[in-house]
Amino acid sequence: MRIDVVTLFPEFFTSPLTTSLLGKAIAREIATVTLTNPRDFALDKHRRVDDEPYGGGVGMLMKPDPLFAAVESLPILPKREIIFLTPQGEPLKQNLLKELVTYDQLVLICGSYEGVDERVCEHLVTREISLGDFVLTCGEIPALALINGVVRLLPGTVGKEESLKLESFEAGLLDYPQYTRPQTFRGWQVPDVLLSGNHAQIEAWRKEQQLQRTRDRRPDLLDRS
Amino acid sequence: MRIDVVTLFPEFFTSPLTTSLLGKAIAREIATVTLTNPRDFALDKHRRVDDEPYGGGVGMLMKPDPLFAAVESLPILPKREIIFLTPQGEPLKQNLLKELVTYDQLVLICGSYEGVDERVCEHLVTREISLGDFVLTCGEIPALALINGVVRLLPGTVGKEESLKLESFEAGLLDYPQYTRPQTFRGWQVPDVLLSGNHAQIEAWRKEQQLQRTRDRRPDLLDRS
Repeated sequence: MRIDVVTLFPEFFTSPLTTSLLGKAIAREIATVTLTNPRDFALDKHRRVDDEPYGGGVGMLMKPDPLFAAVESLPILPKREIIFLTPQGEPLKQNLLKELVTYDQLVLICGSYEGVDERVCEHLVTREISLGDFVLTCGEIPALALINGVVRLLPGTVGKEESLKLESFEAGLLDYPQYTRPQTFRGWQVPDVLLSGNHAQIEAWRKEQQLQRTRDRRPDLLDRS
Repeated sequence: MRIDVVTLFPEFFTSPLTTSLLGKAIAREIATVTLTNPRDFALDKHRRVDDEPYGGGVGMLMKPDPLFAAVESLPILPKREIIFLTPQGEPLKQNLLKELVTYDQLVLICGSYEGVDERVCEHLVTREISLGDFVLTCGEIPALALINGVVRLLPGTVGKEESLKLESFEAGLLDYPQYTRPQTFRGWQVPDVLLSGNHAQIEAWRKEQQLQRTRDRRPDLLDRS
């Protein structure tokens, strides 16, 4: 998979794309990530990428021309999506990540300032995605979350077993509590059932914990299914 | 505000914490961010921080002892919250960011591998927060989103005017479309009303756009209010 990030702050991505599991996956070329700066496509002598909103209002907007030119400078793979990260978009969910992982190419446009000219959303972008109902200073963090979540699903990034684990989350339930050594820590014990060696009992306990937790913490997940 | 991040991958944060608005806010000491590695608090000679789950299952879990020791090594400010970033937590929303910004100190625990020993959640953590209903390889990205969203609300990070703009999002509506120069781009025009100079009309158009968009894209936001 090829991921092209269009960002005014390419330096933001230096350490996240070279650290931990995501860094390893990129080093092993499970995915290719490129960084393109729309400022390099601004034609005036000040390389201006932002301007005031028509009709008045606070802050600056990203101008359409440098964004169109930046995206049009990229190669085009057969199945591609041009994504703008914005609180106005479709909320990111695991099922959306599973759909995006089937693409050859994802172009991710990161907004800065108060947003982008609407003509970018209407005529350039094929999909708007939101990380959640909150406001961040920039689209680079949502882009990074999307890259991590998609690359995680590509074969080779995590072990096969861990991919299987995911299925429980996709079933719409929260995960069960997990414990590791030591068996007693500061007087707090691991639940007896997990030490029993009885796999059927352990599985039943875990399933019950998943249901209980989802009912307690996220009843909205149960309503959906 | 003081933010302490407990992470096995402190190097992840190098470029995001020094870039753009968040980087400037930290450089100007609007917020202090420290990085603590639980591996430095692992007592055995291999500095082991993970182990297998009791009762069987895939992947490894973060052991409780290095996480307790890492958090207990930190100074304690009067109003503090110890937060674990996990899909099992309360979903992050703008109102939650507004609550967190009132704290003196946020300790953010980033999970790796398949998760952490449950005793960390029960006896160390005061709050579990989820970035959304999707799975990432690590808690560093959710921690970064939380840091950005909270620091953005601290006085001095963004201009006063831009903070006011936030109110529309908090009212539970999506934002209206925005346009900047050029007035005609590739034949696509800015809507006439925004060029009219009639501020009452512009305001009415924007409000109507907000309602229309929220109805079309996120009717769930309207149901809530």
